[in-house]
Amino acid sequence: MTVTTAPARRPRIALTMGDPAGVGPELAARLLGNPANRAKADIYVLADQCEVDAAAALVGVTIPTAPTPSAAAVTVLDDHSLPATPIEFGKVSQPAGERALHQLNRALALANEGKIDAIVFTPLNKTSLHYAGMHEEDELRYFAKALAYDGPTSEINIIKGLWTARVTSHVGIKDVARLVTRESTLGAIELLHKLLYEYGIDQPRIGVCSLNPHNGENGLFGTEEIDAIRPAVADATARGLDVDGPYPCDTIFLARHKYDGIVSMYHDQGQIAIKLLGFDGGVTVQGGLPVVIATPAHGTAFDIAGTGKASVASSQNALDIAIAIAGRRAANRGKTGGVNGVSKPAPIASAQGTAVVA
Amino acid sequence: MTVTTAPARRPRIALTMGDPAGVGPELAARLLGNPANRAKADIYVLADQCEVDAAAALVGVTIPTAPTPSAAAVTVLDDHSLPATPIEFGKVSQPAGERALHQLNRALALANEGKIDAIVFTPLNKTSLHYAGMHEEDELRYFAKALAYDGPTSEINIIKGLWTARVTSHVGIKDVARLVTRESTLGAIELLHKLLYEYGIDQPRIGVCSLNPHNGENGLFGTEEIDAIRPAVADATARGLDVDGPYPCDTIFLARHKYDGIVSMYHDQGQIAIKLLGFDGGVTVQGGLPVVIATPAHGTAFDIAGTGKASVASSQNALDIAIAIAGRRAANRGKTGGVNGVSKPAPIASAQGTAVVA
Repeated sequence: MTVTTAPARRPRIALTMGDPAGVGPELAARLLGNPANRAKADIYVLADQCEVDAAAALVGVTIPTAPTPSAAAVTVLDDHSLPATPIEFGKVSQPAGERALHQLNRALALANEGKIDAIVFTPLNKTSLHYAGMHEEDELRYFAKALAYDGPTSEINIIKGLWTARVTSHVGIKDVARLVTRESTLGAIELLHKLLYEYGIDQPRIGVCSLNPHNGENGLFGTEEIDAIRPAVADATARGLDVDGPYPCDTIFLARHKYDGIVSMYHDQGQIAIKLLGFDGGVTVQGGLPVVIATPAHGTAFDIAGTGKASVASSQNALDIAIAIAGRRAANRGKTGGVNGVSKPAPIASAQGTAVVA
Repeated sequence: MTVTTAPARRPRIALTMGDPAGVGPELAARLLGNPANRAKADIYVLADQCEVDAAAALVGVTIPTAPTPSAAAVTVLDDHSLPATPIEFGKVSQPAGERALHQLNRALALANEGKIDAIVFTPLNKTSLHYAGMHEEDELRYFAKALAYDGPTSEINIIKGLWTARVTSHVGIKDVARLVTRESTLGAIELLHKLLYEYGIDQPRIGVCSLNPHNGENGLFGTEEIDAIRPAVADATARGLDVDGPYPCDTIFLARHKYDGIVSMYHDQGQIAIKLLGFDGGVTVQGGLPVVIATPAHGTAFDIAGTGKASVASSQNALDIAIAIAGRRAANRGKTGGVNGVSKPAPIASAQGTAVVA
């Protein structure tokens, strides 16, 4: 697994501060206050300047800002939209959800306009988002709609260097077997391969889980391994991917060090393993979308929100992964003359109407 | 979780040496060579004396034998059935499977005659057993048939003090949701409770997994939590059991220290977690059967069979668990005047026709 990173230009990252009642603002401030992060990417912060200032004060960092992002400063795209009523730490509320959603929507709009390469957001609260009007099963479906994207997607969970994609996600177990097809399995394998490649691993090694116990025991406990998963692995291999399986899902995670990524067949198959492997440093990537979207895997941690105690490890990893993927996508885009319909960086208008990216 | 052990009399254990091509004989010899084990139970070894001698020599232990088991000696029930052709270490074969099955069948016959309280066997090889004529999906179904038992059963997996039972086992994922009913879930909870109680935990604390991701998200991703699992937990609670759930199965294992046992809904839900928690010391109990049957959770380890290197930890735990459960069952049997149709130890005839248990 050779990691190659040769970005053609500085990746452009839109950063939102997540749910204002959680640890999102303080984590965002820690990222923005770290000069190493500014050195790696052009960072646009979707927030009011006063929110950035408050979060910086909370964690005791300095966040230099300028109308154009550079290694010296980030750019705050302040649209003066902060509501007059303060949002309290540690509480689920519609205003908190609305605040988080407003800035996410602005980031998605910038992505649609080709003005940024990636979105990184700090933790959201699902209930507050629900009150604010997000009724999709998960953020991934919300993002796909907002980006008018209807191709294959998968939430990617990353912990300790292991990337996992899944063939089915937020559906009941009764529907899983029907949805595990040769096509859906191949789609998840290819999606994970592409992301790992874009992350910088030239020939990622991918393992594939069985659906059924004991790998289906030669059809005795289900035939999806024979009918769908093995053919999908063969298809992927024929396309030059380094993939093997299916392997019994209760042992493949013990062999995880052989792989860069593992494709699971359903939500808990991967999540039981991932969560037992640890939380600190875990990242979720919204896989398959035309714009890179990454976020720390943990939640809003209402119990410690506003104390500055939250670990920045997952948020830092999310930013680093977003920068790496965006950088390689940009480099490849330069080579091939454009993918995703974007061949040249488009300008971003600041809230004041000034073009801040030439 | 108070552990109480007050056996009315010494538990009677039938020990088989597992697959002769694997690490079973050497592990059995390590158990038999340990005076502490003889002190705890009357041990009957289902093997030819020459097999016991060979295994003892392999691991360098002395195994005192006598026609009646005691703290000083074990009893070898030698029926002179060892085939003339030697069985090679490390190879799958029909003769190896036949040898293992022959002794298991003798142990099951002793159980049916009420002459022993528990069976402990060292690792078997499924393929060799299959060649030898065992065609059931798993050993549990074989044992249930041999014991003419058709009540609820569950393979119980034990690692680091955590006991797991499952509502469904060796079936395809497509059939799982249909099989998770209020009755089957309650059956698994009660089975696990009873075993933990018999093991010596007076009021075991049991957690119950959800079937669907995110606990079904209030019915959005499946309704089995609402229709089956919650009612079963309520039923069990109404019967005085200390049980709670359902909880999302990707986080309940992180809270495992709150519980003595966890009931999972399907094979891999528990097995993914259990196997990530470790192998060394793991035990499988064939839960629900009228006779206690326990075995180390690991396999025949053909790669090291015959070297004496295999760790005895899992086998020792299996023996200890079998002794504890058998002891408490015997104690309760004494109190209540008999359960499972056995109120008084029946005599065991040795291979020579002598009654070795009065």
